Amino acid sequence: MNAPEHIAPAGVKTGKIMLVGLGPGSNEHLTARARAAIAEADTIIGYVTYIRLVADLVEGKEVIKKSMTEELDRAIEALERARQGKKVALISSGDAGVYGMAGPTFEVLFQAGWTPDSEIEVEIVPGASALNTCAALVGAPLTHDFCAISLSDLLTPWPTIARRLDAVAYADFVVALYNPKSGRRTQQIVEAQRIFLRHRDPKTPVAIVKSGYRPKQRIELTTLDKMTEADIGMLSTVLIGNSNTFIQHGLMVTPRGYANKYAVEEGERNTKDGEQAGRSLSSGLNGWMAAIQASGKRAAELAAEYRLPEDYIAAVLQAEVPPEGEEADIES
Amino acid sequence: MNAPEHIAPAGVKTGKIMLVGLGPGSNEHLTARARAAIAEADTIIGYVTYIRLVADLVEGKEVIKKSMTEELDRAIEALERARQGKKVALISSGDAGVYGMAGPTFEVLFQAGWTPDSEIEVEIVPGASALNTCAALVGAPLTHDFCAISLSDLLTPWPTIARRLDAVAYADFVVALYNPKSGRRTQQIVEAQRIFLRHRDPKTPVAIVKSGYRPKQRIELTTLDKMTEADIGMLSTVLIGNSNTFIQHGLMVTPRGYANKYAVEEGERNTKDGEQAGRSLSSGLNGWMAAIQASGKRAAELAAEYRLPEDYIAAVLQAEVPPEGEEADIES
Repeated sequence: MNAPEHIAPAGVKTGKIMLVGLGPGSNEHLTARARAAIAEADTIIGYVTYIRLVADLVEGKEVIKKSMTEELDRAIEALERARQGKKVALISSGDAGVYGMAGPTFEVLFQAGWTPDSEIEVEIVPGASALNTCAALVGAPLTHDFCAISLSDLLTPWPTIARRLDAVAYADFVVALYNPKSGRRTQQIVEAQRIFLRHRDPKTPVAIVKSGYRPKQRIELTTLDKMTEADIGMLSTVLIGNSNTFIQHGLMVTPRGYANKYAVEEGERNTKDGEQAGRSLSSGLNGWMAAIQASGKRAAELAAEYRLPEDYIAAVLQAEVPPEGEEADIES
Repeated sequence: MNAPEHIAPAGVKTGKIMLVGLGPGSNEHLTARARAAIAEADTIIGYVTYIRLVADLVEGKEVIKKSMTEELDRAIEALERARQGKKVALISSGDAGVYGMAGPTFEVLFQAGWTPDSEIEVEIVPGASALNTCAALVGAPLTHDFCAISLSDLLTPWPTIARRLDAVAYADFVVALYNPKSGRRTQQIVEAQRIFLRHRDPKTPVAIVKSGYRPKQRIELTTLDKMTEADIGMLSTVLIGNSNTFIQHGLMVTPRGYANKYAVEEGERNTKDGEQAGRSLSSGLNGWMAAIQASGKRAAELAAEYRLPEDYIAAVLQAEVPPEGEEADIES
């Protein structure tokens, strides 16, 4: 490459793009690194609502406000500034990697021939995503396996979204719906409810959090059969519980599963018969493999019993039960 | 209730339990609120590794170090201290709500008859979870729908875990595996790989991040067919890409889907024929409903074509195509 003299040699960074997750948006939930990245930046680029969240931190800097639909433009503007040797903070609410600017930015950078060895450095500053902050405001709904699904069909075909909703409703995940509804898109949440009701109890707890930790914060607890009647908009996140999630005293909690092992209802820490602290459940992988191999049942019968694919059961019936180490393990 | 005189009247808070998510664990990724909560606390309770992460913040305080398997004990100790009027910070790495202490703590509090109106206040301080911080270190793998699944079978039966793995592998989610492996549990990750290979290309990108943002940070990029050969332990998070995830220049990126709408490969922002910026895709909900209703095909045939349940397709064939508003929408 015939680089002109004013281009820095490879390895020397001149410009920088920082993808900064603000968390929920209140100053006290910013990380020290997010605050420092904004302070370090010459230019701040972001959706106008997010810029407003950090208004007191951006004084004296070049501020480029973009509308919602200009994500690729934001990345292109950042690249142009970084090429001039500037430090640019691209700000997102929540986490910059979760439905945020990190993806579009790398797509634009790769398209432009950027590599990590080039003169422009890229840093991603993680933050708490909407599902974490919403969960923190309603109790402990994410204590077990969960998913995030965006209901926006602006870039994703509906059958893909519907297939995902159906799969996770069936497999009993706690689910966070991002972009659940807008002025224009009102039917997607109705379809999500329709799909969930194929598998879940109509009384499954649902929490709807709007503008969490911001002045207009609004929290509503409801149930799956009533969730479409709630006030849901562009700034809402919808959390649907799993089959064990409950609401008590206005708090939404998904149990971790201690009741599978401990006699918790007696207020005791005694393990149930056949269970050991720091060890897999008797229905854990080893115990389950041994049990189905000893059952004498056929794969098809076991597949129906455990709602698992027959070819997976067949493979497990052939496999050797693995030896179990002695070291105690994390209880989660 | 015959409250003795030294018990504060209802509404006046005396003790406090703060469930604090530390994020990845380095001081610069702490939120201001997490730091203030630790400063405010009389007592710090947590797993010994997490206490060490904030060692410089806990001097002069009562520090109770617990082992991994003592989560319920940690919650009970916190409640005892709070009943004495103390402020207690229960610290977790990542987010206190994600496989963290928030769930077990509410379970213990409810068991003890606590309500939000009682004299003990509870606050959850959200933080970036392991999946956010791991994603930030490897690129932008979470730009589309994702799930978190714990492979620990200490509290969850294996068939439940296997069913979840199979459902999300089928429905093409990006998946973060928590607690993927320990000295004792070595086969769970092999089974997860077996299940994923039923649905995903063996060359699907996988990232393994250990101790992200801590001194012993280790990042490994590999593929689904090779992931069990990688160095995976208790402090690792495993991220498995979806069918569109790619690795380029050592970065793992999941596209958001701009290529579904824009002629991005030409470096242009022109929308493809039939698509509009700020509007649902032509294969979005409305377009898809109209298309299948006009197709003249039966539900069974459409169910096979779109890999969706026949009864859902039948319901959509009966439904009225919703009117679409005019307001432009978020591009995500």
